Amino acid sequence: MIKKIRRLPKNISKLTSIQDYYHQQGTVPGTIIIDENAVQPNIILIDYNQAELIRVQINNPEDCTNYLDTESVSWVDVQGLGNRDILERLGQVFDLHCLVLEDMVNMAERPKIEDYGDQLLIIARMVIPKERSYGFHSEQVNLVLGKHYLLTVQEEPEYDCFDGVRTRIKKNKGIIRKQGSDYLAYSLLDAIIDGFFPVLELYGERIEELEEEVIVKPTPQTLQQIYKIRRELLQLRRAIWPQRNTINSLIRDSSEIISDDVRIYLRDCYDHTVQVMDMVETYRELASGLMDVYLSAVSNKMNEIMKLLTVVSSIFIPLTFVAGIYGMNFNTEKSPYNMPELNWYWGYPLCLGLMAVISAGLIIFFWQKGWLSNSFKIK
Amino acid sequence: MIKKIRRLPKNISKLTSIQDYYHQQGTVPGTIIIDENAVQPNIILIDYNQAELIRVQINNPEDCTNYLDTESVSWVDVQGLGNRDILERLGQVFDLHCLVLEDMVNMAERPKIEDYGDQLLIIARMVIPKERSYGFHSEQVNLVLGKHYLLTVQEEPEYDCFDGVRTRIKKNKGIIRKQGSDYLAYSLLDAIIDGFFPVLELYGERIEELEEEVIVKPTPQTLQQIYKIRRELLQLRRAIWPQRNTINSLIRDSSEIISDDVRIYLRDCYDHTVQVMDMVETYRELASGLMDVYLSAVSNKMNEIMKLLTVVSSIFIPLTFVAGIYGMNFNTEKSPYNMPELNWYWGYPLCLGLMAVISAGLIIFFWQKGWLSNSFKIK
Amino acid sequence: MIKKIRRLPKNISKLTSIQDYYHQQGTVPGTIIIDENAVQPNIILIDYNQAELIRVQINNPEDCTNYLDTESVSWVDVQGLGNRDILERLGQVFDLHCLVLEDMVNMAERPKIEDYGDQLLIIARMVIPKERSYGFHSEQVNLVLGKHYLLTVQEEPEYDCFDGVRTRIKKNKGIIRKQGSDYLAYSLLDAIIDGFFPVLELYGERIEELEEEVIVKPTPQTLQQIYKIRRELLQLRRAIWPQRNTINSLIRDSSEIISDDVRIYLRDCYDHTVQVMDMVETYRELASGLMDVYLSAVSNKMNEIMKLLTVVSSIFIPLTFVAGIYGMNFNTEKSPYNMPELNWYWGYPLCLGLMAVISAGLIIFFWQKGWLSNSFKIK
Amino acid sequence: MIKKIRRLPKNISKLTSIQDYYHQQGTVPGTIIIDENAVQPNIILIDYNQAELIRVQINNPEDCTNYLDTESVSWVDVQGLGNRDILERLGQVFDLHCLVLEDMVNMAERPKIEDYGDQLLIIARMVIPKERSYGFHSEQVNLVLGKHYLLTVQEEPEYDCFDGVRTRIKKNKGIIRKQGSDYLAYSLLDAIIDGFFPVLELYGERIEELEEEVIVKPTPQTLQQIYKIRRELLQLRRAIWPQRNTINSLIRDSSEIISDDVRIYLRDCYDHTVQVMDMVETYRELASGLMDVYLSAVSNKMNEIMKLLTVVSSIFIPLTFVAGIYGMNFNTEKSPYNMPELNWYWGYPLCLGLMAVISAGLIIFFWQKGWLSNSFKIK
Amino acid sequence: MIKKIRRLPKNISKLTSIQDYYHQQGTVPGTIIIDENAVQPNIILIDYNQAELIRVQINNPEDCTNYLDTESVSWVDVQGLGNRDILERLGQVFDLHCLVLEDMVNMAERPKIEDYGDQLLIIARMVIPKERSYGFHSEQVNLVLGKHYLLTVQEEPEYDCFDGVRTRIKKNKGIIRKQGSDYLAYSLLDAIIDGFFPVLELYGERIEELEEEVIVKPTPQTLQQIYKIRRELLQLRRAIWPQRNTINSLIRDSSEIISDDVRIYLRDCYDHTVQVMDMVETYRELASGLMDVYLSAVSNKMNEIMKLLTVVSSIFIPLTFVAGIYGMNFNTEKSPYNMPELNWYWGYPLCLGLMAVISAGLIIFFWQKGWLSNSFKIK
Repeated sequence: MIKKIRRLPKNISKLTSIQDYYHQQGTVPGTIIIDENAVQPNIILIDYNQAELIRVQINNPEDCTNYLDTESVSWVDVQGLGNRDILERLGQVFDLHCLVLEDMVNMAERPKIEDYGDQLLIIARMVIPKERSYGFHSEQVNLVLGKHYLLTVQEEPEYDCFDGVRTRIKKNKGIIRKQGSDYLAYSLLDAIIDGFFPVLELYGERIEELEEEVIVKPTPQTLQQIYKIRRELLQLRRAIWPQRNTINSLIRDSSEIISDDVRIYLRDCYDHTVQVMDMVETYRELASGLMDVYLSAVSNKMNEIMKLLTVVSSIFIPLTFVAGIYGMNFNTEKSPYNMPELNWYWGYPLCLGLMAVISAGLIIFFWQKGWLSNSFKIK
Repeated sequence: MIKKIRRLPKNISKLTSIQDYYHQQGTVPGTIIIDENAVQPNIILIDYNQAELIRVQINNPEDCTNYLDTESVSWVDVQGLGNRDILERLGQVFDLHCLVLEDMVNMAERPKIEDYGDQLLIIARMVIPKERSYGFHSEQVNLVLGKHYLLTVQEEPEYDCFDGVRTRIKKNKGIIRKQGSDYLAYSLLDAIIDGFFPVLELYGERIEELEEEVIVKPTPQTLQQIYKIRRELLQLRRAIWPQRNTINSLIRDSSEIISDDVRIYLRDCYDHTVQVMDMVETYRELASGLMDVYLSAVSNKMNEIMKLLTVVSSIFIPLTFVAGIYGMNFNTEKSPYNMPELNWYWGYPLCLGLMAVISAGLIIFFWQKGWLSNSFKIK
Repeated sequence: MIKKIRRLPKNISKLTSIQDYYHQQGTVPGTIIIDENAVQPNIILIDYNQAELIRVQINNPEDCTNYLDTESVSWVDVQGLGNRDILERLGQVFDLHCLVLEDMVNMAERPKIEDYGDQLLIIARMVIPKERSYGFHSEQVNLVLGKHYLLTVQEEPEYDCFDGVRTRIKKNKGIIRKQGSDYLAYSLLDAIIDGFFPVLELYGERIEELEEEVIVKPTPQTLQQIYKIRRELLQLRRAIWPQRNTINSLIRDSSEIISDDVRIYLRDCYDHTVQVMDMVETYRELASGLMDVYLSAVSNKMNEIMKLLTVVSSIFIPLTFVAGIYGMNFNTEKSPYNMPELNWYWGYPLCLGLMAVISAGLIIFFWQKGWLSNSFKIK
Repeated sequence: MIKKIRRLPKNISKLTSIQDYYHQQGTVPGTIIIDENAVQPNIILIDYNQAELIRVQINNPEDCTNYLDTESVSWVDVQGLGNRDILERLGQVFDLHCLVLEDMVNMAERPKIEDYGDQLLIIARMVIPKERSYGFHSEQVNLVLGKHYLLTVQEEPEYDCFDGVRTRIKKNKGIIRKQGSDYLAYSLLDAIIDGFFPVLELYGERIEELEEEVIVKPTPQTLQQIYKIRRELLQLRRAIWPQRNTINSLIRDSSEIISDDVRIYLRDCYDHTVQVMDMVETYRELASGLMDVYLSAVSNKMNEIMKLLTVVSSIFIPLTFVAGIYGMNFNTEKSPYNMPELNWYWGYPLCLGLMAVISAGLIIFFWQKGWLSNSFKIK
Repeated sequence: MIKKIRRLPKNISKLTSIQDYYHQQGTVPGTIIIDENAVQPNIILIDYNQAELIRVQINNPEDCTNYLDTESVSWVDVQGLGNRDILERLGQVFDLHCLVLEDMVNMAERPKIEDYGDQLLIIARMVIPKERSYGFHSEQVNLVLGKHYLLTVQEEPEYDCFDGVRTRIKKNKGIIRKQGSDYLAYSLLDAIIDGFFPVLELYGERIEELEEEVIVKPTPQTLQQIYKIRRELLQLRRAIWPQRNTINSLIRDSSEIISDDVRIYLRDCYDHTVQVMDMVETYRELASGLMDVYLSAVSNKMNEIMKLLTVVSSIFIPLTFVAGIYGMNFNTEKSPYNMPELNWYWGYPLCLGLMAVISAGLIIFFWQKGWLSNSFKIK
């Protein structure tokens, strides 16, 4: 039966899927499960200090080792998860706990932070606005932060909001080249959080559009749009809430990897996270209010339709009755009381006059109620 | 009166029962009440260390004693609660507090953890998706964790999500054979939590289906489905919320039975629990939003119906009135003012023309309002 | 005006009163105000240890004194509050603070616990299901717990859920005769909490009945029932919430009157309290969801009604119009264009045929929309 | 445009104003702004100990000084705020901080407590039920509690709930004359909290009335009443919530002015405050549920109206069509197929019979649907 | 398609924009981005102690340096952010952290407080009521508080609520000239919080107006107004909530810049903030309740319309049927049973009488239902 329902009418576009990440029912904890559609990993190492900058394409994970031992900051950026062997070798190079590796590959993790002594695992979620429609892509970013290195693992090479940071490193803008790997991690987190703002801006605009549409011309599509926005804001909320805790932990926890200097910057990043949450909640309330307005607007429309029907029926039904009366066939010859009007000289004009009076009276009645003006305005 | 209502129409399937577990009004605390429908217990003991593995079917609970004293991990799995004698003898073998035994048999307990010094009682709730329909079975699992043994008690032998763990023990996959009974308990809890994901996946799919159905073809069955999903998500929520506290207690509490190593794994399990809660809440909000959409969609449908009625009535009522006019029997011979139209040469064509003009005018009016197109589209 | 409204139609039963307990605007704190309808107190003393059991009907409160001093547990159970003199003498015998006495008599207290050093005042609220209808009686129970005695004060002798405990003392079942007054207090509290389950079970059943009724045959009575359930669950919630804190205080606080052994049992009682709260909240959410379903079901019904009206009107109004056309009196003799159809040989059959074609077309149109099938199914 | 709307129809009473207290945009903090409508202050001093009682009307604030120094309790009760000079002199006599004086005069303060070392400022809000209608007056009461004195400042002399306390002092009832100023302050706070109960009782009754009205005869006035109750309960909530914190602070804080004895009494007062909050929340939920019921009841009513229309239309429209058929003017002489029924011997009775059969069939159809019974019951 | 919708009907005013401040996706943290529409900064320095007062217009930020070192309080008020150079030089003069400068210029910050040791950065948000319509402007105010100076930075010179403070300094009113820079900061914060009250007063009035409008004459504009109020209260809430934390931090934190004396004043300011929050929440609940009332009122209106239609249809349709009967053309000559009424002497009067009886009966029926009175009252 549901199969039949699936034939969507042309004017109703299919909703995007819920995009939920189901944690795979693990067999052995720590198992790396490679999605068959996953992209082959592309590894880029950027090693810099205030004076120098090296950017290398890495083919063998073991090639990183040289860079990791130096005092300079090494950023190893892995894009794509399609090769188990390379990932496991990466795990050995960076000496990762087996659960860290599993979390990285399982793209269903909630943002969180795990302290492994000399390493911090930060799982974040970034959003990138879709190009043509509003909506967004959401992607997990894993950061492993050590004293002199930062390993980042992303699912797809296509979407990324780190270009600004790359440029700042390359062109030596700001203080990024003077700071350690903790400042680099902060810069990336900041870029991730800042990436929520353009997405939210789109929703803000869309809500404003719907606010007008819902009053002026509510259609089933409007309803669907409101529902869609509510659903996507729910997703944004799930993405941003745990990140607040993550960043808060980074600020409060006593890990030595994060310097006090960077903690001040993280406070700024935390403020932006709270601001994003604020906006998401505000938009959710607005969207929820829009649903109420929609329902009311539909009821209003019904009122207008019913008014029109009532006006037309109430005017013509009595008139038709009068016409019906004089369509009766009582025999006027049998009795002077049988419809003498039919034989009056002014019978017909009087009858039409009566109808005119009735309809005029009703029109005035409805005019005073204010129904006529409205009925002819609605579109 | 209610009896009569119970005759359900054929197209409305009976809702599943609320499945609530009412704690039986206890007489003496610690009393074991055997449900008469309960299955006879089937006891299986698996005793393993890294080198060896023994799997025995136990008939007398006392037979376990030999295994419990050894350093190897002994997993005693009891399936079925239909024999008071065996349960009480089990209680003596494992030296259980009388309340522990009562809690195990009473299948209405909330997930919780109780520390009895050298034993930890963990009560969990597992869910297994139904085979043909969406929905799930829910079953209480009791774990009594000691230094070298784990006793698990389940209600029914039929449903179980521990096969993965059994295989890992049997085939010596992962590190399970190298670890103690605490790791085994973790593995089972992890399997229980992971068991929520396929159930949630089904609800995710069902919500997506309903999202289309509710816009395209809302029926009373749709309404019923939404309500059913809300009710079942409420049950899932009741099952998962207390488990978060349970696992959190396992991580934080200072019981010596759980090693620090296993606590790291439990943190992972905790993250999955939070993820399940997140998804349940999200689905609950989606289902609640669907209800709003349903109400709006029904209102929209009403609008369409009313539009059609209004269009038909508004076009034909005036026409019928005109026909009624010329059906009147005023005597044209008595006066030249009495319906002279009837005797005109072009009277009838003119009359039909008038009707055509009126109806054309109204059709144009409704066309401009956009009512005609919609009225004929709705299905 | 409200007087007139009060004539309830026969099919709508009067809602039970809100049953709120208004604290009487106290004059002097500690004043005992005797309700004039209160029952004369009936005092029964049960004094027991492991070996012996004495059960005495007490007429003079001073007679208790002998029993209180002994090591054996003395349970003084007062049922009925209709005699100020006896209550004040009881107060002197047990050495009660004036506020304790006031709280006992004022049947509007919230469940709470007050520590007076060598005495604990526990105010609880028990519920007893009504016999014929669903619904419940709610009654305050006051417990004053001392080292070797327990004083319980109840409003009415009729309702009580302590019979199980009395039997266990009498027949020496379980460990109750081996334990002190704290275990007796626990047993009574446990009986009170367990007394919520049968009440909730009734609501569970009633909600299931309403779930069907609301889909199959929603009536104004259904609406009223849902509202009534919501209101009564609100009352249950007010009764159970503070008891959780009460029992939690008993477990955590360091009063010497409660032994550690009994605290373990109280933990079990606490779990049941949380379970009751859980179920109350779940039922509240279900009842609230039912209201939404009801509203939707009523809207659906309206749709069906409107469809029927629209189908009938849309089919017959055009037909009536056609009949109206050929009921016009244009003079066929004056012109060959004046209704020549009337004089055709096949005029009437053709006209009927036209009507048949129109109605067949409309019926097919409505059939395809699926309106006809539904319109004739609704009951 | 809004001006025109303001002409309220006679049957809709104007809602009472929102009664919000807007803090005046302060110029200099500590400024005393005298409302021009304020009443001239009337100062009464009651000085008592266990043995003696003096009651004096004070004209010059300085006259209090003699009483304040003594060990006896001095209660200075100021009613009316219309004289800046007297208020400032009072401030000097009692050595008040300038903010205390400002808070007293600004009748918009939230209930709070401020500790100024040897003085406690307690701001409370009392409610007094209106005499004829339900609803309530709300008034701020300021208490300045010192070691041996209590200063109370009220806005209006008219409303007051302290008469009970005055009588107890005068007639030396209870222990009030044996206790210090802290017990007096407790007695007044207790009277203020107890003053909420009669107001709530009125709302309880009103909600019960509306519960019937909303099912039996919902009108726009019912809707307005529900909204009004919700609004006024919101005000009560704003008045009672901060008082809980106030009293809790009095119990917990370590100020020396409050003796431990009085703290026990304050615990009782705290319990009553929580009870008031409980009831306010319950009533708010009931009122909110009533709104849902109202909406459903209005929809039900619409269903009944539509059923009647549908029944009437569906029965008469087909009959009218049949009558229309035989009102056609096909020429029976031109052809034997042209309406031969008109010339049948039993034509007219057969025609009436056909109509009777049609209407009987439809009536049976609607009867089976259960529509007829309902349509004629609604009032 | 949306473009077409944008043609708003004349009677629906465009909603103001959501006014959200999107944090700009930062490139380098600490970057100052100058909005191109920003006003050129206008800097005014007021330096005062109890004896003297200097007011200078500053052109070069460096000119402030002399004043900052003195013991007297220096208030540097910058209005306008349109010049990067001046802002950076200001930053050097006051030795500001680069993030402080960025926060100041980015007008999207949430109110917060940051402690930089010898400086406190306070970000607040002030609201100023619009002049002609209700609604408000919202503007960020940045305060940098040092031991002897206060730097304030505002976006626009036009709106400001500090005139009262300026006057108090100038005319030496109150204690402001005797206190330090911390008291000045308090005075400004107090003025900002007090500025919320007139805005809220406007919303209070508007809600009261809508309460009447919604019952008396609900229109789509009413709906839009309610939605608008809800949206703007949401904005107010976002502005006031974080300020509570800000002021609370100022009271609790141990910064040496704030003296204990001023903390007492800040407690007063905190109370006002809580009061504003209270009022915002109350108004939000009222507005949300109004939406329910609106929906109910629209449904009520629909009921009235349907009643009128039903009354008119139910009265005239049977009458028209009777007229239709006697319009049939059965041949009275062929049979005595063929419409003998037509030839009766009293046929026509009897027929009219029958109609009169039918209509009288129906009118009485509807009168008793109370439908007639209502139908003619609605406007």
